[in-house]
Parts: sequence; structure tokens; C-alpha cells
Amino acid sequence: MLQAKWAERKFVCVGLDTDYDKIPQSLKDSYGDQGAMIAMFGFNKGIIDSTKDLVCAYKPNFAFYEKHGEAGIEVLRETIGYIHEVAPDVPVILDFKRGDIDNTNLGSVALLQSLGANAVTIAPYMGMVANKPFLDLSDIGIFVLGRTSNKGAGEFQDLLVEGKPLYRIVVDNVLTKWNYNGNCGVVIGATVPEELAMVRQDNPFAIILIPGVGAQGGDLEAVLHSGFSPKGNGILVNSSRAIIYASDDKDFAEAARLETLKLHDAIVSHWTQRFA
Amino acid sequence: MLQAKWAERKFVCVGLDTDYDKIPQSLKDSYGDQGAMIAMFGFNKGIIDSTKDLVCAYKPNFAFYEKHGEAGIEVLRETIGYIHEVAPDVPVILDFKRGDIDNTNLGSVALLQSLGANAVTIAPYMGMVANKPFLDLSDIGIFVLGRTSNKGAGEFQDLLVEGKPLYRIVVDNVLTKWNYNGNCGVVIGATVPEELAMVRQDNPFAIILIPGVGAQGGDLEAVLHSGFSPKGNGILVNSSRAIIYASDDKDFAEAARLETLKLHDAIVSHWTQRFA
Repeated sequence: MLQAKWAERKFVCVGLDTDYDKIPQSLKDSYGDQGAMIAMFGFNKGIIDSTKDLVCAYKPNFAFYEKHGEAGIEVLRETIGYIHEVAPDVPVILDFKRGDIDNTNLGSVALLQSLGANAVTIAPYMGMVANKPFLDLSDIGIFVLGRTSNKGAGEFQDLLVEGKPLYRIVVDNVLTKWNYNGNCGVVIGATVPEELAMVRQDNPFAIILIPGVGAQGGDLEAVLHSGFSPKGNGILVNSSRAIIYASDDKDFAEAARLETLKLHDAIVSHWTQRFA
Repeated sequence: MLQAKWAERKFVCVGLDTDYDKIPQSLKDSYGDQGAMIAMFGFNKGIIDSTKDLVCAYKPNFAFYEKHGEAGIEVLRETIGYIHEVAPDVPVILDFKRGDIDNTNLGSVALLQSLGANAVTIAPYMGMVANKPFLDLSDIGIFVLGRTSNKGAGEFQDLLVEGKPLYRIVVDNVLTKWNYNGNCGVVIGATVPEELAMVRQDNPFAIILIPGVGAQGGDLEAVLHSGFSPKGNGILVNSSRAIIYASDDKDFAEAARLETLKLHDAIVSHWTQRFA
């Protein structure tokens, strides 16, 4: 699915990190408190409808939905179902960041499958054996955290192990040993383009999910320079807040489209100069 | 709450990792397929009723409940509520293993609070800054993964950073820098008693959650020898499957009590010889 989107020069992944507190008041008003979750779904629907022809993937983060308990998870379920309905060729990456012992991960795998996600993010700390229930899903894309985009990410990820930062050992293991089904990619934050460049140099054709463009301040041009594979693909450039909260008024969907288009156009412009 | 339980010589933590597929057929039959989630709650209720006077904590793992989607999370909510009702002095540790960027963790914090958990497990990989929404909860106990009990846990956790295994750096940082509210403990698996001994030697009074006794094969005597603080407390010895699936018949609750009692008695016997 990603290859098809890349062939259409689509590299933007929209993070559906929908925070009820931040959706437009006008939308909340039209549903009232009883309809809070309907408003949240309505918000996602507006964003999806207005961006689905521009993106290579959607990435809802589970935490924004579990915030609202059972009802929030139902909104996530409906949102993923809606994407498959109106944009069946756009994969959904569930930003899940799970990572427990194998027996326990089976529960998270069951939810991932019942929600209908095409890909998932997981955490590396417990190692490959523990994460086999995810890695065994040969038809699901697995993105493992490498070097994350947040402040303080280097606390452990940058520690040197025989002269090599931990995150590079994680990336090496994931893209070789963990990747026995050919379904593994890695997450490298847009805020660390030099680290991204090193990962790309070592792994010319790996799939890299790059969050942190937009609200987290990642430099797009540096990211593209560092991130593209020699074939001019292999990346998903994720933006969440900068797109979905581009306007806090009734025009939120149009504003989201304009922000997505701006990002998309900048990427295509870079691509054209370099790979056309 | 833990200190009070320890003063009563209670160190067993029962892991409520309830897998619907493994609960007694007789219980399933009495509710039928429509009542699957009621049966799951009924199972937990049976285990809680029969063990609540013996334990220092309960630890339900979120993944076993999310397996069943929204309905499963409702069972978790009811289970935690039931513990608070019938055993208000027994803390509930939500085995959550979350760890995302700070803005995102806020969603998980909201769920944790709405479920009414007294403590939570989190993953260290993204660092302290990202995990501040958890660490800031001064009335919630935070257990950070140190050296886990699973096969293959050493893949990253045992890597040497300037001669010191990564997990020990994680433990050091958690018990010093992360612990600004005095609410942090660490998770060290029962399957690695030597590692546990080193952590205890460095941190005589730290609170250590020790999973992996029972089904995962941890050696209890070695764990107690390594784990107890000089005051004869500071540990939670978790067993899940060996207790909750001690019988697959109608007597599951009595069997769970007997297994809990066996573990409790063995710990008290060790304690008495060493600290009485």
C-alpha cells in the first residue's frame, strides 16, 4: 500500500491525535456534552475527507482515544473503519507503542487486528523474543521506536555501546534480526536529522516513519535531505497537531487540507529537484 | 498502602492477567457467549474474594483487557472498582507499560486516573522528560521497567555502557533523577536474581516489583535472598498464571487461594528466619 502511495509521490502521514479539548467549539456545540464522542468522530471525518487524496497514511495514536476510556476506543474503531471505507488504499498505522512479554502482547495484537489497523508502532526495550506476536504478523507493518523526536529522548537512546549509540543498535537489530517477515521499519524523529542521515546511510532501503515535523519543530528540508532512500521513497513524514489544529473554527477541515497540501507540495518540490 | 501491607508481612502481588480463553469452562457455561465479559469479571471477583487478605497488591495487565476491546476495558474498570470496594487497603497497580511523548502520555494518564489505579508501570525508552506526565502524579506509584523477566530481555537491557549494563543505568536514573516526587520504583524480573541482587545492593531501600515467579520460572528463594531490603521489605513478588489458573474447574478461587497462600507462607518463612 505504501509503495503505491509513494509511486503517486505521496509521503505525508497525518497523525490523527485528536484531543477533544482542542477540537473546534463550534463542532462541540453542535453535538453538546452528550455527543462529545460523536463530535470527536465528526472531527476525524472532516480531516479524513479533506486530506485523503494527499496522504500516504493516517496514524491515530491510541493514547488520545484511551483518554476517553471505552467510548474513546469506539471512536478510534469507527475512525479506522471510516478510513477503510472512504480511502481503502490508504494504510492506517496504529500508534500503539506496545511492548510486553510475548504472552501479554497477544492481547494487544488481538485489539490491533479487531481495530483493522494495517501497521503498528512498538517499543524495543523488551527485545525481539517478547515482540514476536507483533513481528509474526506478516501482513502488518511494524514500526519500532529507534531515535524518537521528543526532548530528552537521548537519555538512553544516545548512550554509547562500544562507540555506537543505543538507538543505532536497536535500528540494526530491528532491520536485520527482527525483520524475518520483511515487515519492519523504524521510527526516527524529524528533530534529529543527523541521526536520520546516519540511519539512512546504513540502511538505504529501509522504511522510516518520521514524526516531529510541525508542532515538534522538525526541519523539513533537513529531514527530506537525510531521509529519502536512493530511490526517492522509503519515508513517511508525519505531522499531527500542525495539520489537525490548523484552525480552531468551522473551517478546520479546509485548513487541515491547506496545511497538508503545503507539506505535500514542499516534499514534492524537493523530490522533483532531486529525483525527477 | 504498601508500607501497611509490608508491616503485615504481605509481599505477594497477584497478577490479574485474565485470559478469557483460560477461565474455567463451567464459569463460561453459566453465562454463555453473550455473557463472556460478565464471566471474565466473575472470574476476577472469585480470585479477589479468595485472596484479598493475603496480598500486598493486585496487578491487572491492560493488554489482557484491551484484547476484548471496549467491553474488556469495562471489565478492567469494574475489577478495579471491585477491589477498592472489598479491599480498600490493597493498592492496584495497572500494568500499562506506556511511554510516549509528554503530550501523548497525558491521554494515558487520564485513563489511568479514571480507572482508579494506585500505581502504574511505564517503559523507559523515551526518557524522563517524555514521562513527566506520569512522574508528576505524586499520589500514584510509578514502576519503571528495569531488567525484565522475559526470554531475550537482555538484547538491549544487558548492553554495556561504559562497563555497566543499560538496565542499571535505567534503574539509577529512575531512582534518582526521575524520582523527584518520591513515587518511583523499578521492575526487575524474578528470572534474574543476580541482577536483582546488584540493584538491591546499590539501592537498599528502593521499591522493586518482581514479576516472573511461577509460570515464568523464577526461583523464589533466590529472589527473596536478593530482593528484600535491609528492613525486610521493599518488594512485591508478583505471580499471575500460577495463581489464577491453579485450577481450571469450579474450585478455581479456592485453588488460587491455596497457591497464593503457598507463596505467602514461603515468603513469611524466609522473612521470619532472616528478619524476625
